[in-house]
Amino acid sequence: MAKEVTTRAENYSQWYNDLVVKADLAEQSAVRGCMVIKPYGYAIWEKMQSILDAEFKKVGVHNAYFPLFIPKSFFSKEAEHVAGFAKECAVVTHHRLMNDPNGKGVVVDPDARLEEELIVRPTSETIIWSVYKNWINSWRDLPIICNQWCNVVRWEMRTRPFLRTAEFLWQEGHTAHATAEEAEAKANEMVHVYADFARNVLALPVVVGHKSPNERFAGALDTLTIEAMMQDGKALQAGTSHFLGQNFAKSFDVQYTNNEGKLEYVWATSWGVSTRLMGALIMAHSDDNGLVLPPALAPIQTVMVPIYKSQEDRAAIIARMEVLKAKLEALGHSVKIDDRDTLRPGFKFAEWELKGVPVRIAMGMRDLEAGTVEVARRDTLTKETMALEGIESHIHTLLDEIQTNIYTKALSFRDSNIRKCDSWEEFKQEIVKGGFLLCHWDGTAETEEKIKEETKATIRCIPIDTAVCEEEGKCIYTGKPSHRRVIFAISY
Amino acid sequence: MAKEVTTRAENYSQWYNDLVVKADLAEQSAVRGCMVIKPYGYAIWEKMQSILDAEFKKVGVHNAYFPLFIPKSFFSKEAEHVAGFAKECAVVTHHRLMNDPNGKGVVVDPDARLEEELIVRPTSETIIWSVYKNWINSWRDLPIICNQWCNVVRWEMRTRPFLRTAEFLWQEGHTAHATAEEAEAKANEMVHVYADFARNVLALPVVVGHKSPNERFAGALDTLTIEAMMQDGKALQAGTSHFLGQNFAKSFDVQYTNNEGKLEYVWATSWGVSTRLMGALIMAHSDDNGLVLPPALAPIQTVMVPIYKSQEDRAAIIARMEVLKAKLEALGHSVKIDDRDTLRPGFKFAEWELKGVPVRIAMGMRDLEAGTVEVARRDTLTKETMALEGIESHIHTLLDEIQTNIYTKALSFRDSNIRKCDSWEEFKQEIVKGGFLLCHWDGTAETEEKIKEETKATIRCIPIDTAVCEEEGKCIYTGKPSHRRVIFAISY
Repeated sequence: MAKEVTTRAENYSQWYNDLVVKADLAEQSAVRGCMVIKPYGYAIWEKMQSILDAEFKKVGVHNAYFPLFIPKSFFSKEAEHVAGFAKECAVVTHHRLMNDPNGKGVVVDPDARLEEELIVRPTSETIIWSVYKNWINSWRDLPIICNQWCNVVRWEMRTRPFLRTAEFLWQEGHTAHATAEEAEAKANEMVHVYADFARNVLALPVVVGHKSPNERFAGALDTLTIEAMMQDGKALQAGTSHFLGQNFAKSFDVQYTNNEGKLEYVWATSWGVSTRLMGALIMAHSDDNGLVLPPALAPIQTVMVPIYKSQEDRAAIIARMEVLKAKLEALGHSVKIDDRDTLRPGFKFAEWELKGVPVRIAMGMRDLEAGTVEVARRDTLTKETMALEGIESHIHTLLDEIQTNIYTKALSFRDSNIRKCDSWEEFKQEIVKGGFLLCHWDGTAETEEKIKEETKATIRCIPIDTAVCEEEGKCIYTGKPSHRRVIFAISY
Repeated sequence: MAKEVTTRAENYSQWYNDLVVKADLAEQSAVRGCMVIKPYGYAIWEKMQSILDAEFKKVGVHNAYFPLFIPKSFFSKEAEHVAGFAKECAVVTHHRLMNDPNGKGVVVDPDARLEEELIVRPTSETIIWSVYKNWINSWRDLPIICNQWCNVVRWEMRTRPFLRTAEFLWQEGHTAHATAEEAEAKANEMVHVYADFARNVLALPVVVGHKSPNERFAGALDTLTIEAMMQDGKALQAGTSHFLGQNFAKSFDVQYTNNEGKLEYVWATSWGVSTRLMGALIMAHSDDNGLVLPPALAPIQTVMVPIYKSQEDRAAIIARMEVLKAKLEALGHSVKIDDRDTLRPGFKFAEWELKGVPVRIAMGMRDLEAGTVEVARRDTLTKETMALEGIESHIHTLLDEIQTNIYTKALSFRDSNIRKCDSWEEFKQEIVKGGFLLCHWDGTAETEEKIKEETKATIRCIPIDTAVCEEEGKCIYTGKPSHRRVIFAISY
């Protein structure tokens, strides 16, 4: 099974696609660009949702639900937002099917045309601000800190599972505040919730920074981002948090009476992460044998494979495994005993390796008699024979160790692929090797665009959490003065 | 605040609409028939989801996610399903907007017409069975037991919040089995998961039964249902579970090789509950003062209201409340201290009553000095002054008691509104009074339709869990022989 995965060296892109399909994460559907998230893949996404949702609730976020459809006219209200979003999207024009008069299945009923077309939400700022208008009168109604977990649709021309799909799942937070300072602080707080989640749960080292004006969300005054590095050295934007100023409040006329009785426009933020995180998770940690899942997100943390010849032996081994399973579950771990009787142990080993289960325990009759088990780690691919007695506390510790090790490995890979670059000639040579290039930039959109045209590299972010960028220098492209380095990279 | 709610006696339907809006559960959006579920309403739905999802997982259900869009041609594949479902739905015909050449906002790009129209899922049997075809080859691949939590759209002409909306949230389970017996057993198992959930969590007594052939889901061989009675005596279908036979397997050519090497079509079930449960919850238990929430679903189970004159008193009371809050939270309860300083206690009492919080605790300076609190129950509207010492264990017990009492009250109401009815004249008189009428029926669709035409009453179900229906008799309408009574009622 695992043999069928293309190696990273052979074809990185095909390796990724192979993993998605062969590890049972997702597959293409009959609808162009829309994927099916299979149970194993969805179980990982559910864990992400549940952990992140708990973090949101700790910082006062309330979940709600807003309509899937947005009236077309709403997209005309916020000029910049239209330009950025209202283009490639799914448009509902009719509300009825009818039997084909020629008897060939069903056709759209031409009489059931909608008065105004509806857009399947590509993001919900417009519909949500049309609702917030009803919720906000006075400063007492603020802040509003809502989030929704939902599906959105952007009619992408070129799609890849998880990384870029026509329909995807995400959360979108939308907040309303009395002051600019409070809104900016919220946008900043949320990008750090994402950064902590990426580091601690996804085991994904990320750089937090501001997007350059060119790369901002349509309608935002500032976009904060977490940027991760994949194993091919490309950057992946893993989450964003936007300070929207008063743009949406003005478009939808959302004002509040301040405590001096004066009307003022409300300040906004929005922030989101999506099933794209699944793509980041896969690409950051996995190897040529398959997925490598951080224990915090693994639907199965420990799998046990019995090795036996007779049915009596099988029963004895599985009975012993059940005891260990109960102990591990009592410690809060998820465990599976692979008791399938039609498959060889070697096949099972390869399958669970492909699916990225962090710890594998094998037990045969000799183990049972000797009171030992074989413990295999997915992250290092190492095996060790250990005493069965007290093994549960070892595994408990081991899972933490694996989580840390996966992070450390990704961090060390990333840090060895971040380098300073001070001339245009050097930049052109270095950028094709992948990685993050720390460069001086003159701050203009024009320079940024020229660099992108010539090299496909973009400014991933202007980092806020690293001192290494804080220095004077000259723009690599124009030689004009620059006060800090920014990160350039080729991105997904 | 609470005074603004219309009473049930005055106008039951308006009372319901008032509660939905004034208790901050949901509101209409700018899109016809699509509601906004507000944070307080969504928190109740989230609790339903989380409890039901855990019950699903106990019986081996795996969550997954399938596309929002269904190619139009899929609806032509299952003949009965088309007739029942493919009519009123949202049809996506285009995938791009463009700037209006006249400069007036955005218009649909006529060049971006889809080759085949896409339907926003009204239910997902067709798209899921097109996927199951890839997942199923041998008997070893069966059973498949998947569920998805998602949004669906049915273009209803007359909508009411939660009860009937164009877009709603639900879960839909779809299972695939090797044999008819196994599929039927699964459909039966799931309707009982719903019944237990309704009784134990929603505090909603339900009757489990089969739908008559007329009322079956489009494409099903058998539909099981849970039917609840609302306070106006009308029936509400709260969840359904369908045995689909091999209809979808045949339409999408899903066959498996059995253990004798022969190809056979796969057997199917599907089952779902939706945000309609919110409507059932509201209508079954609430009163003229507002919502009455069963503790198991209340986002806030205990609210504490401090009563004070000075800021010193306020601080002292709130400090004591914090201690109690921590104790209650340690017992697993959700607690809110209403420390808003701009509102009078009476206003707060009315607001939390309207929002259905099961237990309210009030504490003033005299209480603080005497070591007492006032404990008010939402379900009975009774108040009692009690010793503060050890109050947490009293509240712990009280919440259980309230849960039971709400169920018992609804059960006793329902049972006092179930009556046998043996003649057509009596039926016509009784049906307008509301309630469930247990009647003999000759088993024909024709009779069922005539009864519906004349009285609007339908067969809610042929109960499976009550012996009271098991007797010989004569059809109330035709006088033909009948072997058991069925439930007739006017329904939502």
